Amino acid sequence: MTDHTVKAYDNELEALGRKIAEMGGIAEQMLSNAMDALATLDTSLARTTVAMDQRLDILQRDVEEQAILTIAKRQPLAADLREIIAAIRISGDLERVGDLAKNIAKRALKLSGETRLPRAVVGLKSMHEAAAMLLKDALDAYALRDVERARMVWTHDVELDALEDSVFRDLLTFMMEDPRNISFCAHLLFCSKNIERIGDHSTNIAETVVYLVTGETLPMDRPKGPSPAADYLPLPK
Amino acid sequence: MTDHTVKAYDNELEALGRKIAEMGGIAEQMLSNAMDALATLDTSLARTTVAMDQRLDILQRDVEEQAILTIAKRQPLAADLREIIAAIRISGDLERVGDLAKNIAKRALKLSGETRLPRAVVGLKSMHEAAAMLLKDALDAYALRDVERARMVWTHDVELDALEDSVFRDLLTFMMEDPRNISFCAHLLFCSKNIERIGDHSTNIAETVVYLVTGETLPMDRPKGPSPAADYLPLPK
Repeated sequence: MTDHTVKAYDNELEALGRKIAEMGGIAEQMLSNAMDALATLDTSLARTTVAMDQRLDILQRDVEEQAILTIAKRQPLAADLREIIAAIRISGDLERVGDLAKNIAKRALKLSGETRLPRAVVGLKSMHEAAAMLLKDALDAYALRDVERARMVWTHDVELDALEDSVFRDLLTFMMEDPRNISFCAHLLFCSKNIERIGDHSTNIAETVVYLVTGETLPMDRPKGPSPAADYLPLPK
Repeated sequence: MTDHTVKAYDNELEALGRKIAEMGGIAEQMLSNAMDALATLDTSLARTTVAMDQRLDILQRDVEEQAILTIAKRQPLAADLREIIAAIRISGDLERVGDLAKNIAKRALKLSGETRLPRAVVGLKSMHEAAAMLLKDALDAYALRDVERARMVWTHDVELDALEDSVFRDLLTFMMEDPRNISFCAHLLFCSKNIERIGDHSTNIAETVVYLVTGETLPMDRPKGPSPAADYLPLPK
């Protein structure tokens, strides 16, 4: 390759990274907005959050398109190919995080007409804090190519799963206490599941960072959405 | 390209198609098994269903790996590139269908210790029939490159969404009738959401078939997971 070609190629890889960073920022903002909208039943904020999702969808398609065209044009090997594959995967996970935040915002819209039970939302706040931290650490791990931080995300996701179990039991208890709580809490059950899955996607991102930096995949013993490990893309480091 | 190279290339594309077909068969079987396990609370069948998911994960990674290597090696244009991109997308959707069926099977395991309410499962059976039909039609549309059938899937998914709304209300009613139904029905709420999302993935597959055959994307007015339409991969037909 000429210097000129190499520079164009570098620019393409950098453009992918910038789009992922933009997607990460939007996904974090959507999660934060959706949880605020849910806590305050702010329908205007909920609608804004739903509307933000379209930008994420467009960015994901951009990343996928640009990544595939780069593979076809440059025929990259090893580390560069991992860089591009990582961009495709992470953009997919961030698009899903946006969908899940959008789902929470939509629940906030549905709940605005229901009898409220503020104490039922408390457990969801703890889940939100844990999930926001996982997402931030996963995005930082990607930005810094920090394998240790990525492994921490992978380890800490179980705490969010445990929180979800606890919230599930609490919500069922509120429902049993008073049938008037049933509808409100049923919607919150879905919100809690959505937050838990944002943790799963953060963990997926962390796994992708480990793959990106080391060429290795993490073992399969994580409870959710594991990779079939060693047999995947055995590319030279 | 020499004839030999062209043949090797054709073989690669055919191998992708065969893997997608295998994935489709497994996903359909998992959905059917999971719903049987849920209806009868058959823990052995539920465990078998959970175990089947690993094969789908491996196949998805195979398809992704093979597709990307083919793009890098052959630098395909237009129709062939769409073929490969479609394989990546459809394998992703089928892997998610498997996850969702696995989730239902896991709920069947959790429910085996709960007080049962057989009439609560009835609505889920209707949802299952609708979702199984959408999935079958989407897979047939892919196998036959049948755009009309794909558009039918896209149109009919709203019926499954309406069924889910109805099941949601029914389950809430059962919960309000008797607090002893709450735990059982809370788990069924998640199963019903899982089935509804299998419909969404079937619709994604149908959208991919339309893109594969025509090079066009469907408009954005579907309720869930729309494509940012016209700006995506504007490749010549």
